[in-house]
Amino acid sequence: MAGKTYEHISPENARKLATVILAKAKFSEDQASSMIQNMIDAQAQECHSHGLYRLIDCYNAAKSGQINLTAQPVVTDHAPSVVKVDACQGNSLLAFKSGLGLLTQKARANGIAAMAINNSFHYSALWWEVELISDLGLVALAMSPTLPFVAPYGGIKPLLGTNPMAFSWPRPGGDPYTFDFATSASARGEIEIRRRRGETLPPEWAIDSEGNPTTDAERAMSGALLPFGKHKGSAISIMVELLAGPLIGDLLSCQTAPLNSSDTKNITHGELVIVLDPARFGVSFEAAEGLFQDIEAQGARLPSQRRRAAKRRSDKEGLLISSELLVELEQLAKG
Amino acid sequence: MAGKTYEHISPENARKLATVILAKAKFSEDQASSMIQNMIDAQAQECHSHGLYRLIDCYNAAKSGQINLTAQPVVTDHAPSVVKVDACQGNSLLAFKSGLGLLTQKARANGIAAMAINNSFHYSALWWEVELISDLGLVALAMSPTLPFVAPYGGIKPLLGTNPMAFSWPRPGGDPYTFDFATSASARGEIEIRRRRGETLPPEWAIDSEGNPTTDAERAMSGALLPFGKHKGSAISIMVELLAGPLIGDLLSCQTAPLNSSDTKNITHGELVIVLDPARFGVSFEAAEGLFQDIEAQGARLPSQRRRAAKRRSDKEGLLISSELLVELEQLAKG
Repeated sequence: MAGKTYEHISPENARKLATVILAKAKFSEDQASSMIQNMIDAQAQECHSHGLYRLIDCYNAAKSGQINLTAQPVVTDHAPSVVKVDACQGNSLLAFKSGLGLLTQKARANGIAAMAINNSFHYSALWWEVELISDLGLVALAMSPTLPFVAPYGGIKPLLGTNPMAFSWPRPGGDPYTFDFATSASARGEIEIRRRRGETLPPEWAIDSEGNPTTDAERAMSGALLPFGKHKGSAISIMVELLAGPLIGDLLSCQTAPLNSSDTKNITHGELVIVLDPARFGVSFEAAEGLFQDIEAQGARLPSQRRRAAKRRSDKEGLLISSELLVELEQLAKG
Repeated sequence: MAGKTYEHISPENARKLATVILAKAKFSEDQASSMIQNMIDAQAQECHSHGLYRLIDCYNAAKSGQINLTAQPVVTDHAPSVVKVDACQGNSLLAFKSGLGLLTQKARANGIAAMAINNSFHYSALWWEVELISDLGLVALAMSPTLPFVAPYGGIKPLLGTNPMAFSWPRPGGDPYTFDFATSASARGEIEIRRRRGETLPPEWAIDSEGNPTTDAERAMSGALLPFGKHKGSAISIMVELLAGPLIGDLLSCQTAPLNSSDTKNITHGELVIVLDPARFGVSFEAAEGLFQDIEAQGARLPSQRRRAAKRRSDKEGLLISSELLVELEQLAKG
């Protein structure tokens, strides 16, 4: 955040601003409302890369004509434990919310259920989705392919997405145990930031365009990211591709292209969400709490604590936002 | 393998030898038969740590009185998409095989199903189980807690198991895409080997008993292993603990103890297997094949290739076994 100034905006004002911008972009009210809630929650938890900043992406996506601004997702009761939702080239969040009721009903009835979302424009972090599920007392695992910036371990060029995977476990009376991360060693955005600052990269983040390991951010940008955790992370990333791509009849990361690129590839893709009902498996929440206590007692942190601390600050002080971004959004709203 | 001599044994002779040893240990025929097939398959694929060598472990487990040698697993149709199997302190493999029919039936009927195995003595690699499932055209994900040798990321002492996770995707007409690995950066056995050889460890494998990073194998053995992939691997390891422990009402790794230790903790624990039927999700196997081709075309390897090559050798030449182990097993059979 060096050099940037920040200020606060109330959730109400953020909502108004987002509503104006997404209406201007011609998103339907249904499409816009889940996006707005998601962005405000991300901003409140200081996930700036998935917060109000994404209004600009979504505005641009709308203007590019590559997505369906008024899509009404089609929910299909596909099998006793499978919900399929066709996002119809609209945003993933309305599709997710449209199928969520049937998904959780199936999980509670059958013990485990899955939701496959197809043809969705996906900009949001998965923690938001899995935490909507753990808030209902259910366990969730979600994954999605993304843009092909990552070389498989031992490979030399981009093929896999940064393929995030998120998991949330409900903790009665407390915040859930949630993780949500890319299966790449770093985000492309982090490499871009270091490139601009002229900083070198940690080893094992990236390779150059010839497939050689590099700590040079410039070379990394024209090469490829690497998976986290060497061959193991790579294998998990491939699993994400398979389960949220071919399994559900949707695209691989390498069949998608960034928004506004001249590439004719699709910008929409799939997502898979698996939900387990602990009550149908004979859960012991106390045993889980014992594990969390033991982890924290030895000084290790549970994931997502930074988000939680930010949320507590935001609840008191409003949403932290960079002044530069706020000006940009206000101009977009007026323009 | 330095310094060791190897020879070949036919699968038939290996089977005879294993049958004598496990009968001598007083395993029931049902218990023994799935263990024997598993060990022979592991030996054929040169997974020596899970091959015939395990006859010694299983013999010792039997003699220790800590496991049930004649257990008949109890399969419960627990929920429409959930099978529970109580291994009754017997080996995990008979429990797995006992529930497999109902599990795959549920997965085909409902699209996704899960099997929770409780109270099982677990010595085998998970790839064997997930590949039995992918051989049926289904997708499988399996996980299990193990002995507490691993510190959580940022922690200072052992708490988590090496918590393996295995996944298998059926490839029509070919070997499945399978991975199976510990969520620790290394196996405890690998550290023990380096300790004996006086070799140092790669960084990020282990910490000493004070929680400081160490490359000294001796100090690592009295300290803790580290998860693979830093905080991400650690988060996944915790997920394995939760899903194959508290979720199914079974133990955490830290509630189990090694065979023959003076510790009074249990040596049996749980396992979770999730199965998806691709036909119920709208699969495109061709798209998956395209991904595998692209991975191999850039020189990266798919996981499990070493096992496959070993299997082809073993099919021709018989099972490779260390002469030292063969002598030990023959003595055990005679003794």
